[in-house]
Amino acid sequence: MTAPIYDRVALIGLGLIASSMFWAMKRAGLAGEVTGYARSAETRDTARRIGLCDRVCDSASEAVADADLVVLAVPVGAMAAVAAEIAPHLKPGATVTDVGSVKQSVIDSVGPHIPEGVFFVPGHPLAGTEHSGPESGFAELFDNRWTLLVPLPDTAPEPVARLRGLWEGMGAHVDEMDPAHHDLVLAVTSHTPHLIAYTMVGVADDLRRVTDSEVIKYSAAGFRDFTRIAASDPTMWRDVFLTNKAATLEILGRFTEELFALQRAIRTGDGDQLFDYFTHTRAIRRGIIEAGQDTDAPDFGRVKAGS
Amino acid sequence: MTAPIYDRVALIGLGLIASSMFWAMKRAGLAGEVTGYARSAETRDTARRIGLCDRVCDSASEAVADADLVVLAVPVGAMAAVAAEIAPHLKPGATVTDVGSVKQSVIDSVGPHIPEGVFFVPGHPLAGTEHSGPESGFAELFDNRWTLLVPLPDTAPEPVARLRGLWEGMGAHVDEMDPAHHDLVLAVTSHTPHLIAYTMVGVADDLRRVTDSEVIKYSAAGFRDFTRIAASDPTMWRDVFLTNKAATLEILGRFTEELFALQRAIRTGDGDQLFDYFTHTRAIRRGIIEAGQDTDAPDFGRVKAGS
Repeated sequence: MTAPIYDRVALIGLGLIASSMFWAMKRAGLAGEVTGYARSAETRDTARRIGLCDRVCDSASEAVADADLVVLAVPVGAMAAVAAEIAPHLKPGATVTDVGSVKQSVIDSVGPHIPEGVFFVPGHPLAGTEHSGPESGFAELFDNRWTLLVPLPDTAPEPVARLRGLWEGMGAHVDEMDPAHHDLVLAVTSHTPHLIAYTMVGVADDLRRVTDSEVIKYSAAGFRDFTRIAASDPTMWRDVFLTNKAATLEILGRFTEELFALQRAIRTGDGDQLFDYFTHTRAIRRGIIEAGQDTDAPDFGRVKAGS
Repeated sequence: MTAPIYDRVALIGLGLIASSMFWAMKRAGLAGEVTGYARSAETRDTARRIGLCDRVCDSASEAVADADLVVLAVPVGAMAAVAAEIAPHLKPGATVTDVGSVKQSVIDSVGPHIPEGVFFVPGHPLAGTEHSGPESGFAELFDNRWTLLVPLPDTAPEPVARLRGLWEGMGAHVDEMDPAHHDLVLAVTSHTPHLIAYTMVGVADDLRRVTDSEVIKYSAAGFRDFTRIAASDPTMWRDVFLTNKAATLEILGRFTEELFALQRAIRTGDGDQLFDYFTHTRAIRRGIIEAGQDTDAPDFGRVKAGS
């Protein structure tokens, strides 16, 4: 066990990401004491019951007192209010970070509240499941996944390096990126795919001639993956789309343009165009497997676990 | 080990489905001898090397000689030619089935070739992975998945019941459905989701400001699921879209209508509409888990296997 990277860490919000951070920090001994706060009394009770956090506090200001690192792990739309609430209680020299899926909006809404002498280093772990809440976390969530840090141009290098060390200690790879590029990359790899999955699941449900029970019984690979994506936390995703509006709308525009081209190929019976397109996308999958972001193994685990 | 359901089974085409059927039949002792044929000599060699089929034949007509059950497991677009080739060699009283993802088109193209005294019982196992070829099969593929049989109105009940017994012996649940309804249900649960996944992966690749390497490195849950879907066999999927054109185009129309409504909600900042929509789709996922078609467990298996 190495020495802790931070003596005291405060987790504000106790959902999937924060609870996974707690277990990952404990696994590697990265933090001395970890305090936690959630707005809902029920969540705080659950956290106390399952031993999530060394100390669960009844206010955000109590949780951040004396903290060396404060992690804002609330939906993007709630970041500004939380930042305003904790700002007067932050310790000089402390670092504030966040785990929001959108970065420019968080910088705009949190940045102005950060007092002189406190460092603000926005971050975003690219990891998740369709589950949410304090009981959904697990220590392995960040293992071999990427966390993107989006430091502001005037932030000193030391707090950024220290935060990077924490994420690496929790098992993640770390890259740095500017906020606009982050928001575009995420619109492509995460935000638009989520919106599409939500839409397809909604269409299936809405169709009168096919019953929900049929959709559910006969949903094979493709649709099951969509429903898993579309089961993600509604509040978090509402805020993502409202705060990453420009990039999401841009990618949606590209998507519908491309979809219409394939739709036209189906209508006109252009098999060559379809075949070429599908062959090309297969190669991209290969690249993801080679990059170690997923495994090539058949889906035994999931099928068997459900049987 | 119970008595075999069929003394001799012929598998025409040796891809993911046929090879999984072979291993599943062997697991439960459902067939006496299983012969196999694939158009490509390389596939036949591979099958011989890995022990796929009791006997690999160099022609389809040799494989079907004396077979009690003939399984057409080739892409939908190749069904008619194969049916014409084997028709003169079918044993009276034999059953011909298929595993194609579209049913009306297969009935139209295969049905006319089936001789008097041979039963044709179209079928479709709702199971698959993104892998293809003779080495991709495994005995568990059909366990707890649905197979849909689409018998013609004038087919005697005995051959249908016997084929149902085979599928149940391979681990599947079996339902019967008429071809038009089958093709609509599959357009919703499988065909349109696949087209959408292919499109999204293509868009990501096409975007100049985000490199392929970034897409690959930073693809978290949503996009990784899409790439898995979009890695499926290009020939099979080309044929699916060309032969289930009407239903796919209908569902695509509903999908784009719905997507435009959500896009408008993003553009106008209507958070309530987004939140309500996302909350609703979450409930559908719950139904799929309760129906036993997937598991609620976090995606440990896949993440760990890749690390």
